[in-house]
Amino acid sequence: MTTSRVLLSVLTVLVSLATDAQSQTSNRPHKTTANDSEAEIKALYDRAAKAFEARDIDGIMSVYAPGDAVVAYDIVAPLQYKGKDAYRKDYLEFLAQYDGPIHIEYRDTRILSSGDLGIIHALERMTGKLKSGEQSDLWLRATSVVRKIHGKWLIVHDHISVPVDFETGKAVLNLNP
Amino acid sequence: MTTSRVLLSVLTVLVSLATDAQSQTSNRPHKTTANDSEAEIKALYDRAAKAFEARDIDGIMSVYAPGDAVVAYDIVAPLQYKGKDAYRKDYLEFLAQYDGPIHIEYRDTRILSSGDLGIIHALERMTGKLKSGEQSDLWLRATSVVRKIHGKWLIVHDHISVPVDFETGKAVLNLNP
Repeated sequence: MTTSRVLLSVLTVLVSLATDAQSQTSNRPHKTTANDSEAEIKALYDRAAKAFEARDIDGIMSVYAPGDAVVAYDIVAPLQYKGKDAYRKDYLEFLAQYDGPIHIEYRDTRILSSGDLGIIHALERMTGKLKSGEQSDLWLRATSVVRKIHGKWLIVHDHISVPVDFETGKAVLNLNP
Repeated sequence: MTTSRVLLSVLTVLVSLATDAQSQTSNRPHKTTANDSEAEIKALYDRAAKAFEARDIDGIMSVYAPGDAVVAYDIVAPLQYKGKDAYRKDYLEFLAQYDGPIHIEYRDTRILSSGDLGIIHALERMTGKLKSGEQSDLWLRATSVVRKIHGKWLIVHDHISVPVDFETGKAVLNLNP
């Protein structure tokens, strides 16, 4: 084997190693699957909305991380719901206020993700008939944090609210985007 | 030069390239600096709180991403503030309600990060004297989304709120964690 042939074969190995390193780097989940992640997070939110519209509490809770991983700041008191069990009770109380179907609509949705972390925030319109007979049509603000846990995106944090008017001390329930 | 000496020198180059590639990979933020990221995000929030306490509007705005990257759901209407300029005006109006120093305290803070995305949420106590003479002592819920942009963490989304009581239509302003 001549020196030049050895050099050639070693260079071939070098190029192959470099190409391999490059391809490993570009295959990292945060690089190539950001769009996939965002589509998955959108699908998770859509699934949650459908379960909510169907008043299916198990369907709703299936989008949340287990145990104490969930910390939720809901539209109603207390300041925070710690853990899935506490948040489930809150959902049941909320759903019990409505009579018949509820309709959910999102606007100005933004989804961001990197690796196993994602966020989604949107304006959310919730319409339905309350048990009092009153028709409710309410725009909320919703922010959720999701993590990919054992290959599945699950919500670990919710923040749901309406703005308030400090002069009157009232919640502002008649806003439109 | 003998074939073996050529091989030796090429192998040295190979090892050096491999080591270099390894060190580049392990220096990626999403792999080795999750704790660092979380410390940096905490520092960003602390810096924002200090600027807020000092009523330093430029200091406050320096933690936000430029242009339209920021979408904020604030405690007061409208439903959302789109872009840094709109949010700056909102901050100025909020600060103008207070007379003298404001004190900020956080509790139950959680910080998560992956790659160039992070979130922080906490209960936030804000105390200070209003221009009406009234002493204000308010617990809020705060969620922020941060991105690492050109090496700096900046806030791209805020969600700040208090819970509401649907029976009275009032904001619930007297809660404690």
